[in-house]
Amino acid sequence: MDHLAPLDNLVAALSRLPGIGRRTAERLAMALVQDRKGLMRILANALLEADDGLACCERCGSVTLSTRNPCELCTRPRKEARILCIVESPGDILKIEESGGFHGRYHALMGRISPMHGTGVADLRMDRLLERIADEGFEEVVLALGTDAESDATASYVRELLANRPVTVSRIAFGLPAGSAIEYSDAATLARALRGRQSM
Amino acid sequence: MDHLAPLDNLVAALSRLPGIGRRTAERLAMALVQDRKGLMRILANALLEADDGLACCERCGSVTLSTRNPCELCTRPRKEARILCIVESPGDILKIEESGGFHGRYHALMGRISPMHGTGVADLRMDRLLERIADEGFEEVVLALGTDAESDATASYVRELLANRPVTVSRIAFGLPAGSAIEYSDAATLARALRGRQSM
Repeated sequence: MDHLAPLDNLVAALSRLPGIGRRTAERLAMALVQDRKGLMRILANALLEADDGLACCERCGSVTLSTRNPCELCTRPRKEARILCIVESPGDILKIEESGGFHGRYHALMGRISPMHGTGVADLRMDRLLERIADEGFEEVVLALGTDAESDATASYVRELLANRPVTVSRIAFGLPAGSAIEYSDAATLARALRGRQSM
Repeated sequence: MDHLAPLDNLVAALSRLPGIGRRTAERLAMALVQDRKGLMRILANALLEADDGLACCERCGSVTLSTRNPCELCTRPRKEARILCIVESPGDILKIEESGGFHGRYHALMGRISPMHGTGVADLRMDRLLERIADEGFEEVVLALGTDAESDATASYVRELLANRPVTVSRIAFGLPAGSAIEYSDAATLARALRGRQSM
């Protein structure tokens, strides 16, 4: 059979997407080849436009328009501008904005401490964090990290890093998710919810 | 927050891929934006090259180079060139070629009869199939379709369609997959394997 180099290259490129294995990449490539509505070109153009039009904010790390860097979240007046929320990824910033539960500034670390994946402190945006703490007059830092061991390690590291800076450091609450019942909660969630009990 | 049109467009384009929901598309888009190795452009170029360089063979429907249509499978001498293997998709052709179990010609229907997905006989390559049966002198047609109800319906339709043509029609065997044990086989597989028993 002919060696179909363009097909092999497409499968290889798709395989580089996170969570897309070789099998899925092959399936997607075949679907793209068979598509009769020009999806291949639509997707290519969307990628090229995004590559030109989007950037990571040099300040907070959020996704922003290339023409607007630092981003709007960093530059527009915000009610809680003295509070800096530290997250792992730009996607987390979008999630927290959608929640409407925070009105301060953000800082994405672009990962978390993960020896297993070879991500160390030097790969995260810690230096930029210290610069910002020094320059932007934050009074409080909120760690909005996840609940697993790697996120815990990252949270501990940041707390130590900021120990002698003039900011208070807090971490978002862990407990029962909204709408859940004791009956269906797992042991770890319940234990954390009990430890974090609040007077009422 | 700024309306990030390029991000929205990228998510929308990725969502059109089969099996990729909105959530996954958002995750992929964020990963692409954060990627520092130029994956966005690599993928865009792979798509554009594939769009230019690949085509579906006008005869069998297999994926082929745009410069080679009809494809090599249709034009090169093949040991069993009198046998036509009918499959649902170009991907199935690649699978069967990899198996090394067939050396004839192929015909991809580009789908199967599926009222649920709005795919009817008119959407499949049945007219082209009849043309090929008339023109290419096949003696046998092998249906290499799956085992579910939609594939069964498609197989029945093709058998009827070819009832008064000068070809024998067969269907690939169903039974225990290689390396499997009775103990771990499901009832439907076992029932089909028993019905298809062969003298030895």
